[in-house]
Amino acid sequence: MSTAHGPALHPALASVSGYLGVFEGDGAGDYPTIEAFRYREQVSFGHVGKPFLAYEQRTWNPDTAAPMHAERGYLRLVPEGVEFVLAHPTGIVEVQQGPPVVEGTMACTSTVVEGTATAEEVRHVRRRFQLEGDVLTVDLWMTTPEVPDGAHHLRSVLHRQV
Amino acid sequence: MSTAHGPALHPALASVSGYLGVFEGDGAGDYPTIEAFRYREQVSFGHVGKPFLAYEQRTWNPDTAAPMHAERGYLRLVPEGVEFVLAHPTGIVEVQQGPPVVEGTMACTSTVVEGTATAEEVRHVRRRFQLEGDVLTVDLWMTTPEVPDGAHHLRSVLHRQV
Repeated sequence: MSTAHGPALHPALASVSGYLGVFEGDGAGDYPTIEAFRYREQVSFGHVGKPFLAYEQRTWNPDTAAPMHAERGYLRLVPEGVEFVLAHPTGIVEVQQGPPVVEGTMACTSTVVEGTATAEEVRHVRRRFQLEGDVLTVDLWMTTPEVPDGAHHLRSVLHRQV
Repeated sequence: MSTAHGPALHPALASVSGYLGVFEGDGAGDYPTIEAFRYREQVSFGHVGKPFLAYEQRTWNPDTAAPMHAERGYLRLVPEGVEFVLAHPTGIVEVQQGPPVVEGTMACTSTVVEGTATAEEVRHVRRRFQLEGDVLTVDLWMTTPEVPDGAHHLRSVLHRQV
């Protein structure tokens, strides 16, 4: 894929070419230690002609538009599958690994979750992105010291923006 | 500080308010294991009204404009100083900590450097940003398995873009 506005897509990105762009929609969060909440989310994936996607995400309060979470990083497509590296303003970094993307589904699991001295501890994160046409569904499961068996935390359904 | 285009700056960001914006300029890289090289670099710092800066960096070949490195993350201002979390498309994540920013100088040292299964190992990274007026000078030192005592790797001098 090549456009007038950028370099040709690296062949390693063929399985995630549908991810390129901006997606926005509603999300719902829950966890054993907090009250359920709702959010609005925007996710974008970009490329520069190399075998990775640049990833950016932010969420905001659907009523007040106040910023909530954010995260950014890179999704590497390697022969073995995917490698996802992320940083969060909560002071957390993640290294995620997963198998090759099949039919738009990207599932990955943390091999590293580390934080700054003042960050709240997160032990493990599992993520799943499912792209069907122009709809991207995002799920996240998280393990913390208080919830050592892990639990589903976030689900959002995002629509491709024109 | 408040503008028509965004929220008021969080008071914790007072020492880095000069960092807000986009800086661009020339850089030079060197390391015991590679040939010296030159690059063009752009760095941006943004905020959303919370006590962190969103950070984004990219470099490109000054002759061909081909993309070289990139990194993105967040700079947290905490009472103890700064906490910097970053992700790289090379498959590396960093957690950096440093003392409070004084007179525009932000110096930090990695407490965590981790990578994906296929990333090249980096053991330690030290960073320094020095802002004098509209000039931001960036230095980076790196320790790898091949250079266990560490060495200076990158220096760039960036100018605030209007």
